[in-house]
Amino acid sequence: MNIKASPHAGVRGPADHSIRDQILLAADEHFSYYGYGKTTVSDLAKAIGFSKAYIYKFFDSKQAIGEAICHKCLSSLLDKVREALGEGSAAADGLRILFTTIAAGSTDLFFSDRRLYDIVIYSTGEKWPSSQEYERQVRELLKNILRQGRETGEFETRTPLDDQCRSIFLAMESFVNPLLLQHKLDGIPAAIDDLIKLVLRSLTP
Amino acid sequence: MNIKASPHAGVRGPADHSIRDQILLAADEHFSYYGYGKTTVSDLAKAIGFSKAYIYKFFDSKQAIGEAICHKCLSSLLDKVREALGEGSAAADGLRILFTTIAAGSTDLFFSDRRLYDIVIYSTGEKWPSSQEYERQVRELLKNILRQGRETGEFETRTPLDDQCRSIFLAMESFVNPLLLQHKLDGIPAAIDDLIKLVLRSLTP
Repeated sequence: MNIKASPHAGVRGPADHSIRDQILLAADEHFSYYGYGKTTVSDLAKAIGFSKAYIYKFFDSKQAIGEAICHKCLSSLLDKVREALGEGSAAADGLRILFTTIAAGSTDLFFSDRRLYDIVIYSTGEKWPSSQEYERQVRELLKNILRQGRETGEFETRTPLDDQCRSIFLAMESFVNPLLLQHKLDGIPAAIDDLIKLVLRSLTP
Repeated sequence: MNIKASPHAGVRGPADHSIRDQILLAADEHFSYYGYGKTTVSDLAKAIGFSKAYIYKFFDSKQAIGEAICHKCLSSLLDKVREALGEGSAAADGLRILFTTIAAGSTDLFFSDRRLYDIVIYSTGEKWPSSQEYERQVRELLKNILRQGRETGEFETRTPLDDQCRSIFLAMESFVNPLLLQHKLDGIPAAIDDLIKLVLRSLTP
């Protein structure tokens, strides 16, 4: 599998966003209906009324199309998180909001568009750049919240920030990683609440 | 699917352990080779040279045979944990040993007998009694270690024991639950070490 280095890898050709979006929209529908594995670039071409060659002017493979869809999907999830985080709340609330919003958004996607969720799972399993970028950004959001809590004296500072960040990400990973989340859908709010309480006990100054 | 109430559910008939074991051994080999889903009770009967009716004297379904194999497999994993836990070590070491031994044993199984691991995954996904009993016993081992640490003053006692136990199990679940572990095989020792340190910080008196 041809793994590229950026979430926009494989996107190429004329800078005509409306055509690119049209291809993505058709691909999204096709993947949602027939599944990512069963859809070919020829199917997409037929559905949109473009030639296969024309589609290849915009995306260099089916994976590049899948990547763009995953990127859009995960970016929109992260936008929701950033919006929910807002500004000025205590770091403890930030932790709660971060993981609750991610889990809620992912669960919504799982139940409302299972086949799209399956592409996201696929991208996570294959370590596509889109899912790696998502993970990197979740870690960054987490680190910012921890930094804030350390600065205000809300969290302990004996443990290095990187160690705190890495271990908390591991503790919460089942609710961030779509591959794991699919097995943890029962009792999510209570489980996150329990885990956040444990994490906060670990951060006591 | 006919879910039974105990790990021995579906096991019946004459109390002849050697024949029961012979059936389990043949089933284990067959499942390991052809997979649980593709093996029928008729296949097993042929392989052992028994009639199908005779096998049904000992197990009332294919699931009952699968259950017995999972039970054996998970019991042997728990035996290793109990042996490693030994006696007299500090509660912090106990926590480390508990989760490290479980993860190591499960990883060994994953790499040495993938198809058997797949039956265990199947049993976890379907919440078979064998895997539920395994989870119950891991929680019990965890609770005993926490109780010991609370009694010796090694761990804090402000948080109720049940809350500590539930949240720590959640934090470590990816290394206990075979369904989750299959996605977490990279970097296990370091990840467990990080998580145990977080858990110990949360238990500081």
